Amino acid sequence: MPRYALKIEYDGTPFSGWQRQADQPSVQGALEAALARLDPDVPSIAAAGRTDAGVHALGQVAHCDLAKDWAPFRLAQALNHHLKPAPVAVVACARVPDDFHARFSALERRYLFRLVARRAPMTLERGRVWQVAHPLDLAPMRAGAAHLVGRHDFTTFRASLCQAKSPVKTLDALEIEELPYPGGQEFRFSLRARSFLHNQVRSLVGTLERVGAGAWPPDRVKTALAARDRAACGPVCPPHGLYLSHVGYDPDPFAGA
Amino acid sequence: MPRYALKIEYDGTPFSGWQRQADQPSVQGALEAALARLDPDVPSIAAAGRTDAGVHALGQVAHCDLAKDWAPFRLAQALNHHLKPAPVAVVACARVPDDFHARFSALERRYLFRLVARRAPMTLERGRVWQVAHPLDLAPMRAGAAHLVGRHDFTTFRASLCQAKSPVKTLDALEIEELPYPGGQEFRFSLRARSFLHNQVRSLVGTLERVGAGAWPPDRVKTALAARDRAACGPVCPPHGLYLSHVGYDPDPFAGA
Repeated sequence: MPRYALKIEYDGTPFSGWQRQADQPSVQGALEAALARLDPDVPSIAAAGRTDAGVHALGQVAHCDLAKDWAPFRLAQALNHHLKPAPVAVVACARVPDDFHARFSALERRYLFRLVARRAPMTLERGRVWQVAHPLDLAPMRAGAAHLVGRHDFTTFRASLCQAKSPVKTLDALEIEELPYPGGQEFRFSLRARSFLHNQVRSLVGTLERVGAGAWPPDRVKTALAARDRAACGPVCPPHGLYLSHVGYDPDPFAGA
Repeated sequence: MPRYALKIEYDGTPFSGWQRQADQPSVQGALEAALARLDPDVPSIAAAGRTDAGVHALGQVAHCDLAKDWAPFRLAQALNHHLKPAPVAVVACARVPDDFHARFSALERRYLFRLVARRAPMTLERGRVWQVAHPLDLAPMRAGAAHLVGRHDFTTFRASLCQAKSPVKTLDALEIEELPYPGGQEFRFSLRARSFLHNQVRSLVGTLERVGAGAWPPDRVKTALAARDRAACGPVCPPHGLYLSHVGYDPDPFAGA
C-alpha cells in the first residue's frame, strides 16, 4: 500500500484535540472521515504531534496508507473537498517510503506561541492569541528563557499526566520576539526541540509571562527548573495562543510539493 | 458636552456594516448600545468610514459627545466592558476639541486588502482574507496598479449606488507586497487616499487580481480607467479581505493615548 505524508493546517477551536475520541470532534477524526470517503478500508493515521484541545497547527504532519495510487496533488484536493466545512486543510501532500513515520521519523518540532498584551479585548484574533491586560517586558522574559535552553530535566514544566518515559529533553531554541500590536504589544515565542513533553510549551510560556509581568525575577525560572517539581511551575497558559508550526524530517518529504 | 475620539477595531463578519440599521446588527449599533449604558441620552456617533457588510477595521475612528467628563482610559474600559461579546473593541480613546469630526476632519484613509492564492481552503484565517485557488504574478499587478495612482475620474471603479458628488479622487498610494503563505502566496494591497468612493478598493483589487491571474494585460487597467464606465471594471472582490487600517488627522488625536 502506498504511503502518503500530509502537511495539515487547522484551527483547533472546535476540536477536543488531535486525537480521535469516541464522542467528541477531533482533528484526527475529521481527517479519517475524509479519508474514509476515498478508501473503504478507513485507514487510521498517525501524526507527529498530538495537540491538545484548542491548540492550532500551521504544519502538523501525518501519514496514511491507501489502497490505491494517488497523485499527491489530487489526494490533497480530494481530502480538502471532503473535509469541508471543518477548519482543517491539507496544505501539502507527498508520496513517502514505507518506513516514513510522521511521529517516529520526526527530527524536530517547532511551536509558535502568540501572546498579546493590551487592555482592549481581542476581536479579529479572538481565539488566535493569548491576551493579558497588563504590559510585559521583553528583556527579563529573554533572560528567563535563557535558563531553559539546553538539555534539562523538565519535570517542573510537564503535565502530571505526561506519559513520556523520561522528563529529560533538549530544548534547542526558545526565542522571543516583540512586535507592535494595535493598542498594545505582541510577543511571539518560537520553540524548537526534537520532541516536547505534555504541556511543556504552555508551562514554559505561562512561567515566562510571570517574568515579563515583573511578578517573577528571571532567576526564579532557573530555581523552578532545578526543583524538578511540578508545583514550582508558573501558571500553565491557555491553549489558544499555541501553534504547532513545523515538523522537520530528513529528507523533507514536502521539498518538491 | 465633552467630545471624545475612539479608535475602533472590529471583525466585520457578524455585521451588516458600520451603519446603524433598523433590524440588522451593525458596528455603529453595537457601539451606540454600549454608550447608552454610560449615558442615558444615547448619543449618536459619527465615523470616518462607513464600512460595508463583512469589512473589518483595525483603526476605524468615530467621535461622540458625552454628558459627563470621562478619563479617556476609563471610557475605553467601560465601552469595552459593555461591548462584550461583540467582536468590537475600543483600542484608543482621546478627548478632542469640539470642532473635531471623525469624518470631516480626516486627512487620509488607509485600507489593507489581504488576498491569498493557494489551493487548500482557509482554516485559521477563514473570513480574514480573500482566497483564490490559482497562482498570481506580482509584477503585472504592480504594473496595473501604477495606472491607478494619482488624480483620476474613478467612475469605472465605484459602485453604481455610490453617493459621492464627484467620481474624481486622488489615490495617493496603491502598493502590493508579496509574502510567503503556507501552501501558497499572500498579497497585501495597501491603499491610501484622502477619501475613497463606495466599493472603490474592492473594485480595484478585483480588477488587479484578473491582471495577476494573467486574464487581463496590465494596460487594460488603463483602458478601463479611461472608459469611465462601470461596465469596464473587473469583478468586485468579496469584502472579507478588506480592512480599514488607519485614519489620519492633524494633529493625531491619539498621539498621547
